[in-house]
Amino acid sequence: MLKFYFAPGTCALASRITLEEAGVAYEPVRLDFAKTQQRSPDYLKVNPKGRVPALATDNGILTETPAILAYVAQTHPRANLAPLDDPFEFARVQSINSYFCSTVHVAHAHRMRGYRWADDPAAIEAMQRKVPQSVGDCFTLIENEMLKGPWVMGEKFTICDPYLFTLSGWLKADSVDIARFPKVHTHRLLMLERPAVQKALVDEPR
Amino acid sequence: MLKFYFAPGTCALASRITLEEAGVAYEPVRLDFAKTQQRSPDYLKVNPKGRVPALATDNGILTETPAILAYVAQTHPRANLAPLDDPFEFARVQSINSYFCSTVHVAHAHRMRGYRWADDPAAIEAMQRKVPQSVGDCFTLIENEMLKGPWVMGEKFTICDPYLFTLSGWLKADSVDIARFPKVHTHRLLMLERPAVQKALVDEPR
Repeated sequence: MLKFYFAPGTCALASRITLEEAGVAYEPVRLDFAKTQQRSPDYLKVNPKGRVPALATDNGILTETPAILAYVAQTHPRANLAPLDDPFEFARVQSINSYFCSTVHVAHAHRMRGYRWADDPAAIEAMQRKVPQSVGDCFTLIENEMLKGPWVMGEKFTICDPYLFTLSGWLKADSVDIARFPKVHTHRLLMLERPAVQKALVDEPR
Repeated sequence: MLKFYFAPGTCALASRITLEEAGVAYEPVRLDFAKTQQRSPDYLKVNPKGRVPALATDNGILTETPAILAYVAQTHPRANLAPLDDPFEFARVQSINSYFCSTVHVAHAHRMRGYRWADDPAAIEAMQRKVPQSVGDCFTLIENEMLKGPWVMGEKFTICDPYLFTLSGWLKADSVDIARFPKVHTHRLLMLERPAVQKALVDEPR
């Protein structure tokens, strides 16, 4: 059985929703970030990056959200989670997930993980102050240019949707008012109606 | 014909090398970042993010390096640029390219593009000071855990290789001594021997 390493409140939620949507049997393994279990010697053998998510398969371990999402979609074609037979449409899905990981998640991370990019406490505070603007700019682009509705790619639910849902769940804590983004807000509500999403949220903070 | 929007000295190089490796006919369109052409109204119609690379295809425009690389590999299977028939191996390639875009490129970007994440000039300088360490840490992981040799994925050249070559080309300017990473250094030298790489470098700064 697949083993899925996660921590509540992290981007691992996107992969967990996708596993649930695909109907995959998996064993969730929860890491306690407050105890820095992600840096324990045992976990560093699983993922030397000391991050979540990680998915242990029979073939080996996979990390990085866009790779895990595409893997679950490709290995469960009946779940219809990505346009697997159309390289251009598949690339558009990948492009959006790539933007999510390299730009949106990174903008958000400057609120809690500024120490990755500066040592000076004043600099880390300056980063935190900018998060509402930088994350807000990302969601303006998502609202105006990316999210077709009702799902990210239009009529078909894809692996972009669990990822967007995960990121939009951070808006409140990032001091960005979701009311500025009506399509993103509607997307959240639609996602919350899905049984797979409800199952995947079991360990998330309320 | 494909139209490829790029600027010298950017991560667009990874896509350009991949286009050359695939033997694709394309028209390179060079943007002048010094004149902020990436923010011109015309270019924002191509890529609303105001970034490079962008690849204009008959079906539409693609952005984000990992998506473009996988698209070129999938649409040119004879070039053997990715393990297209093995979802796990393909996911490992995607995982590495995802790490490159979301962590390595982002660490590097704090030297020149700190304004994305803070407004305070002192904070931007603090970010610049940390780049040698954060980029160095990324390459320690690449050297010890990712780069199998001679190519990233082992015996087979893949779309991870143009991307690593692009990132390792920034080490000197990031004040990271490539001599600390003998496998990465050898990889650069092997890449420079490839005719496709030499062609792709035609517009790059020497």
